[in-house]
Amino acid sequence: SRVSHLNKSIAEIEAALQLLLKLKVDYKGATGQDYQAGSPPAENMDESGNRSIADGADDDTVDPWNVSTTSAKGVDYDKLIVRFGSSKIDKELVDRIEKVLGQKPHRFLRRGIFFSHRDMHQVLDAYEKQKAFYLYTGRGPSSEAMHMGHLIPFIFTKWLQDVFDIPLVIQMTDDEKYLWKDLTLEQCHHYAVENAKDIIACGFDINKTFIFSDLDYMGSSPEFYRNVVKIQKHVTFNQVKGIFGFTESDCIGKISFPAIQAAPSFSNSFPQIFGGKQDVQCLIPCAIDQDPYFRMTRDVAPRIGYPKPALLHSTFFPALQGAQTKMSASDANSSIFLTDTPKQIKNKVNKHAFSGGKDTVEEHRQHGGDPDVDVSFMYLTFFLEDDEQLEKIKQDYRSGALLTGELKKILIDTLQPMISEHQERRTQVTDEMVQQFMTPRPLNFRY
Amino acid sequence: SRVSHLNKSIAEIEAALQLLLKLKVDYKGATGQDYQAGSPPAENMDESGNRSIADGADDDTVDPWNVSTTSAKGVDYDKLIVRFGSSKIDKELVDRIEKVLGQKPHRFLRRGIFFSHRDMHQVLDAYEKQKAFYLYTGRGPSSEAMHMGHLIPFIFTKWLQDVFDIPLVIQMTDDEKYLWKDLTLEQCHHYAVENAKDIIACGFDINKTFIFSDLDYMGSSPEFYRNVVKIQKHVTFNQVKGIFGFTESDCIGKISFPAIQAAPSFSNSFPQIFGGKQDVQCLIPCAIDQDPYFRMTRDVAPRIGYPKPALLHSTFFPALQGAQTKMSASDANSSIFLTDTPKQIKNKVNKHAFSGGKDTVEEHRQHGGDPDVDVSFMYLTFFLEDDEQLEKIKQDYRSGALLTGELKKILIDTLQPMISEHQERRTQVTDEMVQQFMTPRPLNFRY
Repeated sequence: SRVSHLNKSIAEIEAALQLLLKLKVDYKGATGQDYQAGSPPAENMDESGNRSIADGADDDTVDPWNVSTTSAKGVDYDKLIVRFGSSKIDKELVDRIEKVLGQKPHRFLRRGIFFSHRDMHQVLDAYEKQKAFYLYTGRGPSSEAMHMGHLIPFIFTKWLQDVFDIPLVIQMTDDEKYLWKDLTLEQCHHYAVENAKDIIACGFDINKTFIFSDLDYMGSSPEFYRNVVKIQKHVTFNQVKGIFGFTESDCIGKISFPAIQAAPSFSNSFPQIFGGKQDVQCLIPCAIDQDPYFRMTRDVAPRIGYPKPALLHSTFFPALQGAQTKMSASDANSSIFLTDTPKQIKNKVNKHAFSGGKDTVEEHRQHGGDPDVDVSFMYLTFFLEDDEQLEKIKQDYRSGALLTGELKKILIDTLQPMISEHQERRTQVTDEMVQQFMTPRPLNFRY
Repeated sequence: SRVSHLNKSIAEIEAALQLLLKLKVDYKGATGQDYQAGSPPAENMDESGNRSIADGADDDTVDPWNVSTTSAKGVDYDKLIVRFGSSKIDKELVDRIEKVLGQKPHRFLRRGIFFSHRDMHQVLDAYEKQKAFYLYTGRGPSSEAMHMGHLIPFIFTKWLQDVFDIPLVIQMTDDEKYLWKDLTLEQCHHYAVENAKDIIACGFDINKTFIFSDLDYMGSSPEFYRNVVKIQKHVTFNQVKGIFGFTESDCIGKISFPAIQAAPSFSNSFPQIFGGKQDVQCLIPCAIDQDPYFRMTRDVAPRIGYPKPALLHSTFFPALQGAQTKMSASDANSSIFLTDTPKQIKNKVNKHAFSGGKDTVEEHRQHGGDPDVDVSFMYLTFFLEDDEQLEKIKQDYRSGALLTGELKKILIDTLQPMISEHQERRTQVTDEMVQQFMTPRPLNFRY
């Protein structure tokens, strides 16, 4: 079977070559330049805003306010890596993380749910030399209703905090929500505090985590505002127009907001945690749609004397109706909410989860289903811990041995206890705990 | 002499008619509408930015960063009133202020140095009904070197504070200077504190005055930031482009800054002073070049549920070289600095103060000088308290009885003790006093 092994290798090489050629074409389409190995597209954003992510009419749309694709498999993430100029989280990186940590990487890494990064090798280099870094993630609190998709970055960030034993700052952009939505300041701030309870319920270490509302923290930290102004001095309207698609009719609050999401990337925004140090490296786990903010941040950082933040990007959590869109907090049937009862979960999955199965049991048994477009299977890739069980489900579904109803049952059995346990942990989050998490204060961590 | 009196009145009426006709023409030129008594131009700024103050190529240029005119008499302030849509401080208003206060109005009011206003009658109405109001003024601290022109709003504001017995907030826009100039945050903040000492030396009541650096106060007051965000939500890029002439190449800090200068116009930006009240009327004494900020503020105010600030506008303090330009802190010979010695004052006035006199004593005696373009005389209108003495100097200079050297001597004798006394008061301003003035705290005032 050395021959079959060789044939398989040749087939893999050919497939890889096809992908490479396709990527080169996409690269030229997105950047206007021929691809050259070892020269990634410049991160510098010039005044013409040619790093716009909104260009390319037939591409997926991915920006902080819109995510859409016409493919049932979801956004083409390989294309996105080329377009955004980030790096793929490949097997080499996942293996290295395993080696550095001495433990199995999180399933989100094993399964390509966190699929893209910037400078993660540099973070690991520093970690190996026992140099400090910290985590930064966030949430835009536009309603009390958080769904499971909102938890992805927090579940992963909690794991990072545990395995690396490092401090974490979580920004609640209540000011952003006020600027973008038809909400009052009071509503946005209220949602920030309510959402913080769900975030705390993910199990963050109170001694290593600072959660802040922009509306509160901007007015509590002259150092934070100083960094905001520094960033605002080094980004033009043309740049934010290119990056975010802002227009001249947008309010000046939206136009200047990106600096506020950028500022927590710099450690001296938190003197109570880092004692004024301005060179502690930041690692940002987030969904890929937030990358435009941090491309901008990385462009500005060296010009104001700060290190660039590193990033880990996740794919989107699909809506029940299919991977064409992100879940929407405003459509109750598009997602499983953190407040859903076991019965609601069961009904939503059975009624709304898009199926990759065939129309009849007979057809399904004969031809098998398509796990690549099946939302129940996608959800299991996010939440079922056991790799072998997941692989068996995939094969059985594809072969037709596993029916859609059976697949949905496995998902329901996975989600119901997960959500119930979250709800149980949330009831244990007291107002005093929230206040402590949200109070600027020193954190405990080594170095 | 009833006839000569009548002739004089007719001449005055004719002159006024001529001015009125000229103003109507200017009005149409500036607004595109025929003038109608009782309907001032709308303050609303639409998306086309048609309230731009930069339009009209042959007009004087007056905005927060540029003031220039081709006339040796200085900017045409009557035209500016029409263009900005403000109201003239006429004899009726000055008389009313005198009546309300029961004392002589400040020489800046008597002599038209504060020449324009918005809603001052409304402020007086409220004052007569014992309703509260407060004062707000400010300074952009771009260097340690303050000149006499910088003191004009503070001298007048101190008088207003004394006669009305009301609280005062003074904004040091160190963030603005960082955004506009090639300075570090530390430099701008340092200048804010140094300039505060000169401001305190004007004699403000420590129990009724709060001086703040934006870089400090933004990070100390969630309420201030909340108002900034509220304003930023209600002003578009198109509007600030129209009002301030910003372009797409400007940094997002400049574009959003006007909200920060607007926010102190609303009393709930200072909960420590007004206990959360959001309807205390604000009165802003400032040079006319700052009006664009407050036109914007007055446009936004009703849309976010706050009262519009009232304004009192001053003319510009002329440079020694003549009234064509504002004094410049970067040209040591263009102005009298607050640090100048008596000898420097004498030399600067004798050497650089533009003279309206004739070339030779003989000519001067015969034809007289022109006080309207004579900088020494202009300075005396700012600083010589005695109205009769000033009038006599004017007549004597015009007639030729007073020579340029003699006029300059009077000015030198007026300025030298004024500046020395200021320097003396400044040495008495301790760091503790500065810190107290700059600490957010309750202020003492009636109501």
